[in-house]
Amino acid sequence: MLSILYLVAITAEAMTGALSAGRRGMDLFGVALIASVTALGGGSVRDVLLGHYPLGWVKHPEYLALTVGAGLATVAIARVMRYLRRLFLVLDALGLVAFTVIGCQVALEMGLSPAIVIVSGTLTGTCGGILRDILCNDVPLILRRELYASVAVLSAGCYLLCRPWLGEEQALLITLAAGLLLRLLALRFNWQMPTFTYPDDPHG
Amino acid sequence: MLSILYLVAITAEAMTGALSAGRRGMDLFGVALIASVTALGGGSVRDVLLGHYPLGWVKHPEYLALTVGAGLATVAIARVMRYLRRLFLVLDALGLVAFTVIGCQVALEMGLSPAIVIVSGTLTGTCGGILRDILCNDVPLILRRELYASVAVLSAGCYLLCRPWLGEEQALLITLAAGLLLRLLALRFNWQMPTFTYPDDPHG
Amino acid sequence: MLSILYLVAITAEAMTGALSAGRRGMDLFGVALIASVTALGGGSVRDVLLGHYPLGWVKHPEYLALTVGAGLATVAIARVMRYLRRLFLVLDALGLVAFTVIGCQVALEMGLSPAIVIVSGTLTGTCGGILRDILCNDVPLILRRELYASVAVLSAGCYLLCRPWLGEEQALLITLAAGLLLRLLALRFNWQMPTFTYPDDPHG
Repeated sequence: MLSILYLVAITAEAMTGALSAGRRGMDLFGVALIASVTALGGGSVRDVLLGHYPLGWVKHPEYLALTVGAGLATVAIARVMRYLRRLFLVLDALGLVAFTVIGCQVALEMGLSPAIVIVSGTLTGTCGGILRDILCNDVPLILRRELYASVAVLSAGCYLLCRPWLGEEQALLITLAAGLLLRLLALRFNWQMPTFTYPDDPHG
Repeated sequence: MLSILYLVAITAEAMTGALSAGRRGMDLFGVALIASVTALGGGSVRDVLLGHYPLGWVKHPEYLALTVGAGLATVAIARVMRYLRRLFLVLDALGLVAFTVIGCQVALEMGLSPAIVIVSGTLTGTCGGILRDILCNDVPLILRRELYASVAVLSAGCYLLCRPWLGEEQALLITLAAGLLLRLLALRFNWQMPTFTYPDDPHG
Repeated sequence: MLSILYLVAITAEAMTGALSAGRRGMDLFGVALIASVTALGGGSVRDVLLGHYPLGWVKHPEYLALTVGAGLATVAIARVMRYLRRLFLVLDALGLVAFTVIGCQVALEMGLSPAIVIVSGTLTGTCGGILRDILCNDVPLILRRELYASVAVLSAGCYLLCRPWLGEEQALLITLAAGLLLRLLALRFNWQMPTFTYPDDPHG
């Protein structure tokens, strides 16, 4: 079940990446690259930082084919995309939680400490979007937006707490339900983390 | 022969990196860093993603000395550089194809699948320029410019196809000729990949 | 003694990272992330490039707890921070030299060549700040500012030269004293590396 979720998630993330590339007027190579980085970048950052080789897409090049295909398909159906915005918000939320749980599982299999399991889940859930925004020369949105990263941290914590008591499968289901609910509520009611504003200062 | 090409290519790439640093008014450390990242960054990204250690410049620090030296030499001869623009476009095209072939060879030696061989060649050819543009705070030019990345993809494919039939040396020569020709034609006639423009949308 | 210096240094760097996040109006997750990347990013880049696993913060998650805590504490005491500017400049200089020496030690333990030891020290000292500026969408300040990176290069060279003659401990003390002095003099008298300015050119 997590594998199917993963495929849905990388497809959805690739499509959001392609739209970002389109906002910057990139060419089709740029679209394919940004789509793939958005979908697979979180897992790649995690694997490189943890020394977990080979990377997912090196072992399974079909994932890369899927993200490139999804990115290019987005160009073809760009007109329809704005009517699917709500669907994509849900798929994106699902992807966030699914990526986070997968990141936790990788760290657990490597026998890492609970703090690093949570970091691994959070990196997997969020770094794809951060890389997309760096390549598109934006301040990463995720660092300024409604609870996106917080959902990853809380989902990772939830999965980590539930797993020893309920087993892998039920922990996954509960985390998915809770994370998805939290993210959709945050979007609906525009919940935000408190922000920190420090006045810019030319001497600073 | 590929080694000599490689040395020419990293020198040329380091010099284009130094010019980018100069456009941003960086200090000499910045010039040396951007020169080295432009020349050696593509191979480094490839090696980190594939887990191929040690990195080239760690094993051969003389490459690093060459890129730092080429970067600083560019500062000294900056006035002459604008008269050499055509020469540099050719050297840059040669470097692109040479880097790409080297990236393919590394992946082939690691026994990776054909799709990853092409990705490895493309990353090696293009990531140096992408990192240069990120450090200089630009949207990577390569994602918007005439066929640069496409030449890398097609060169990698050409090399991969020719190698089993013609042997390593002839595959290299054919790829170099074809890639160089394609890149120079693209520059001459301003060929471009189709771009994807998605209207910016504050609610998007 | 180097361990204590290291803890002081990552705390100081995390706090400067948090202030950068505040200048961009990031949320608390962004503050914690930028704080951690600023403090631990230099060592992480070095470890990934040298293939030196596991990374420091994966082995010692308490470092990560310290940088997240220091980042969030900065939000609480932001009003006081501007009166502590001089203290922070000294702590930051101390951190720069301490990070650089640690980077040299890692490369020496791995048996790498002197050139790579200096590169390793410089990367450890400077990459945290470069990553902070990329995530905040600035041209890295370090590439334009008073002798910051040069202090790292010279400190690394000093440590490398003194160590075989004076032993590890005395080499550390001399490097700290010399690097700190150089950095503070550079700040006081606004010393700068010569910069390279190459006119921007739409055809370039």
